[in-house]
Amino acid sequence: MIDTTRPWTVGLDVGGTKTHALLLDGGGVVRAERRAPTQTGVAGVVEGSVHLAKELLADTGVAPAELAGVGLALPGVVDPVAGTCRNAVNLAIDEPVALAPLVSAGLGGVRVRLENDLNAAVLGAQHLLAAAGEPPSDDLAFLALGTGLAAGLLLDGRLRRGAHRGAGEIGHLTFVAGGAPCACGQRGCLEQYGSGSALDAAWPSRTGRPSPVEVFEAAAAGDPTAVAVRDEFARAVAAAVRVLVLTCDVGTVVIGGGVSQLGQPLLAAVVAELDRQAAASSFLAGLDIPARLRLAPAGVPAGAVGAALVGRTERNR
Amino acid sequence: MIDTTRPWTVGLDVGGTKTHALLLDGGGVVRAERRAPTQTGVAGVVEGSVHLAKELLADTGVAPAELAGVGLALPGVVDPVAGTCRNAVNLAIDEPVALAPLVSAGLGGVRVRLENDLNAAVLGAQHLLAAAGEPPSDDLAFLALGTGLAAGLLLDGRLRRGAHRGAGEIGHLTFVAGGAPCACGQRGCLEQYGSGSALDAAWPSRTGRPSPVEVFEAAAAGDPTAVAVRDEFARAVAAAVRVLVLTCDVGTVVIGGGVSQLGQPLLAAVVAELDRQAAASSFLAGLDIPARLRLAPAGVPAGAVGAALVGRTERNR
Repeated sequence: MIDTTRPWTVGLDVGGTKTHALLLDGGGVVRAERRAPTQTGVAGVVEGSVHLAKELLADTGVAPAELAGVGLALPGVVDPVAGTCRNAVNLAIDEPVALAPLVSAGLGGVRVRLENDLNAAVLGAQHLLAAAGEPPSDDLAFLALGTGLAAGLLLDGRLRRGAHRGAGEIGHLTFVAGGAPCACGQRGCLEQYGSGSALDAAWPSRTGRPSPVEVFEAAAAGDPTAVAVRDEFARAVAAAVRVLVLTCDVGTVVIGGGVSQLGQPLLAAVVAELDRQAAASSFLAGLDIPARLRLAPAGVPAGAVGAALVGRTERNR
Repeated sequence: MIDTTRPWTVGLDVGGTKTHALLLDGGGVVRAERRAPTQTGVAGVVEGSVHLAKELLADTGVAPAELAGVGLALPGVVDPVAGTCRNAVNLAIDEPVALAPLVSAGLGGVRVRLENDLNAAVLGAQHLLAAAGEPPSDDLAFLALGTGLAAGLLLDGRLRRGAHRGAGEIGHLTFVAGGAPCACGQRGCLEQYGSGSALDAAWPSRTGRPSPVEVFEAAAAGDPTAVAVRDEFARAVAAAVRVLVLTCDVGTVVIGGGVSQLGQPLLAAVVAELDRQAAASSFLAGLDIPARLRLAPAGVPAGAVGAALVGRTERNR
């Protein structure tokens, strides 16, 4: 239920390097957007979030009292009921901190809800795909390809947080036995091959533009090394998609994260790899995995949209 | 809610080679048990199930009218609402068949419910572990190591069937790139390494006893080939467990299926492998995977118990 007398919500996706903020109206439409470098630590996250929210309100002339709520998406282990966050390494927040009341105090007592960033992103992606005219779905994974590789899961309409709030950590499944060392201590983890960082390492930027853009352009132009880098990357992403489909049988897999800004060429490379595998396996062909793939809508930050949706819910999901 | 005037339910786990049947009382205790070779085809499954149910009733003097219901667990794609089963290759049932009304008609109109066999097994395992004094859990995977390798998932108290009723098919994730060919058309599938069939192939029975028993005994006696076979098997099972934990973060993983009759030596081999991996990875160590492992209770067929539980539910779960 949307409170029509207070239809606005602010969503903040607090990433390791930048924070994305937006104002959502009662119809679920983004009405204003801002981004700023993230300030880390508890005080930094609280002050940065409060400051960005106030700027959005000033931009649009909305009063804090008109807000139904504020949602914060955080790259850590979130307890949405307690309003705490812990293990957010990239924010320099380790022990559990009750961020929600601190941000609320800075915004005149408005209700603040927290959510894990990938959980927010899957809710945001669900909303954005429906807004773009896709058939409504309550069964999605958001596969984030960025610094790392991980997924947010919405199964049968419910966020799957996991018994220890660790669901979706598929980037640390083994892709290459005895392969590249991972910071987690294992070797050959999927995220060493299927993340933005993996592309950065395999094809360091030569022109200052993002590595993924350079690799995919060079591959399209026929550079054999770039083709090899692109295709190995696509194999790893396809493996991540297969893990999500064979384990959870999720209806839709949304490819998001920074690398997804590549758009159609990325989707085409992953689909080509999935098609190649399905040609050899009637089992895989029957799963029709390519038909489940979507790109995260371009230009709209799914995590911040999802954070705003979390901010306006009456109850935790 | 249990109907105390009709407290009994029959559960039938119709496997590819044998059918397990039991009578559960209102307190969830197994009061009679039978098994018989499975008759395949629609008529075979219906007649075999009706016959076994009648035998159980005759064994115990319970009248059909005293049954709250009958549950059938089937190795295929089940629509529990429609009461249909399809794609049960090992039962020679391909197209969707409404088995529930056929079995019901043979048993005087008693309510019959169908469930996928692994879904029934995870419900049965949940019930049996609680009955054995484990803390109650509504977040479990049942990892079946038998002819193949697959899992049933109970997440946050709800069966995870999947968008296309295909959740838990982790046996067809790649374990060895370019490895052993699988009937599914892929190579190196997990079930080529972590199933009972994999042990049969790697160590054909020499004495007529089951291969898993022979391998584990020979390995315990120091036979280096057997040690290698056992440890590769344990690596594959550990990989399956990691997939379940990292993807779904399931609270408990119950190791079941025929191979689980090995008991503690199987659990010890898998735990040793998981411990070895955790020693190299603080990330894995933090997941505390060995603490989540349980063996399916010995001597009680979890699938048939789960089928009986399904048979007595008022609504589908």
